[in-house]
Amino acid sequence: MRSSREANDVTRELPVVERILSANDLVARENRRILDAHGIRAINIMASPGAGKTSLILRSVEGLQHELRIGVIEGDVAGRVDADKVAERGVPVVQINTGGGCHLDAPQVQGALERLPLEAIDLLFVENVGNLICPTGFDLGEHLKVMIANVPEGDDKPIKYPGMFTAVDALVLNKVDLAPYVDFDDQKFRTAFRALNASAPLFPVSCRTGEGIPVWVEWLRSQR
Amino acid sequence: MRSSREANDVTRELPVVERILSANDLVARENRRILDAHGIRAINIMASPGAGKTSLILRSVEGLQHELRIGVIEGDVAGRVDADKVAERGVPVVQINTGGGCHLDAPQVQGALERLPLEAIDLLFVENVGNLICPTGFDLGEHLKVMIANVPEGDDKPIKYPGMFTAVDALVLNKVDLAPYVDFDDQKFRTAFRALNASAPLFPVSCRTGEGIPVWVEWLRSQR
Repeated sequence: MRSSREANDVTRELPVVERILSANDLVARENRRILDAHGIRAINIMASPGAGKTSLILRSVEGLQHELRIGVIEGDVAGRVDADKVAERGVPVVQINTGGGCHLDAPQVQGALERLPLEAIDLLFVENVGNLICPTGFDLGEHLKVMIANVPEGDDKPIKYPGMFTAVDALVLNKVDLAPYVDFDDQKFRTAFRALNASAPLFPVSCRTGEGIPVWVEWLRSQR
Repeated sequence: MRSSREANDVTRELPVVERILSANDLVARENRRILDAHGIRAINIMASPGAGKTSLILRSVEGLQHELRIGVIEGDVAGRVDADKVAERGVPVVQINTGGGCHLDAPQVQGALERLPLEAIDLLFVENVGNLICPTGFDLGEHLKVMIANVPEGDDKPIKYPGMFTAVDALVLNKVDLAPYVDFDDQKFRTAFRALNASAPLFPVSCRTGEGIPVWVEWLRSQR
């Protein structure tokens, strides 16, 4: 029988993660230097699968394209569905496929930066892999971390996934148009979020109907 | 400047993951032996955050509690919201909190098995951490892997997260009651799923309204 001591031995190998993290942090610092040198503001967009990351980016492009030059890095385990949607709008975009990786890391973003026309970008969205856990642990060199929660996902997510809600500079609550059809307690959600994060603004939106988007876009504008 | 060779060095450390995986597989094998010795059938339930894992377990308990003795292991990064909901039904349940961990592993499940009344359980649900990526890579000792996709999450998930759709023995598509309010192309979803997995049955359900649940429960019954 496998002893619990042996299970502990597996746990003890975890310091390796620390080494990866600090190598990542050094590359992230370099990414930030590159972005700053080009006057680019970069936003790391994190959320569950299907929360509306690409939809929010497309709505933001719509709201800002006449005043800011936007670029996008798309992170997915596989496929280029999102990059194709962004490219259709004439926005410069690079798709990163992580293979099995459950989050973006700074070296992947550095590789993508090398393939973007940095001199022609003011605002860069980095769409992380759909995952509420690991992306928080990896600095990409971004200036702001934004999370998208969503109504049908449930009001208990801050309790179950506290790390990301704690780390973010702004929280978007998407799919508010579905509120009449699901059991989502807005007050319970807000209370749980505020227990973790007192200062990040919260933007209720529907990327589908456009509700709330102007306020979100106004905040983006103010972050330049 | 950070060279791309240094980024590659980070990647080269990945064999460590292989060692964790094989230790995990040995513990998983032991878990399966323990489960079999008690005549327990174990199902690993995997999905995004908020897809309805706990709701499906509660619906299954409702449908089977007069014929089968059910037990539950709840996996979450933090909190005991789900375990409390299950315990309210009088079902034996153990909550695992992974800290920052983005999936359950076999040693965690072994620890939970030690705290369950195994002689009084026929069917064990193991609710994995909400994540469409990493849980697939870790055998827990279960007999069946079930995934829950959901309608508001979008029809493109098989393309973006192929690993889990490929690995599962059954796929539940939850929240079909929301189909009139979102853009979900059922045919596109099915085609993408079938390209990855020709044999796993697909169960469209609504845990909220109960639609489709009897067929899912009948399948569970047939798996004993």
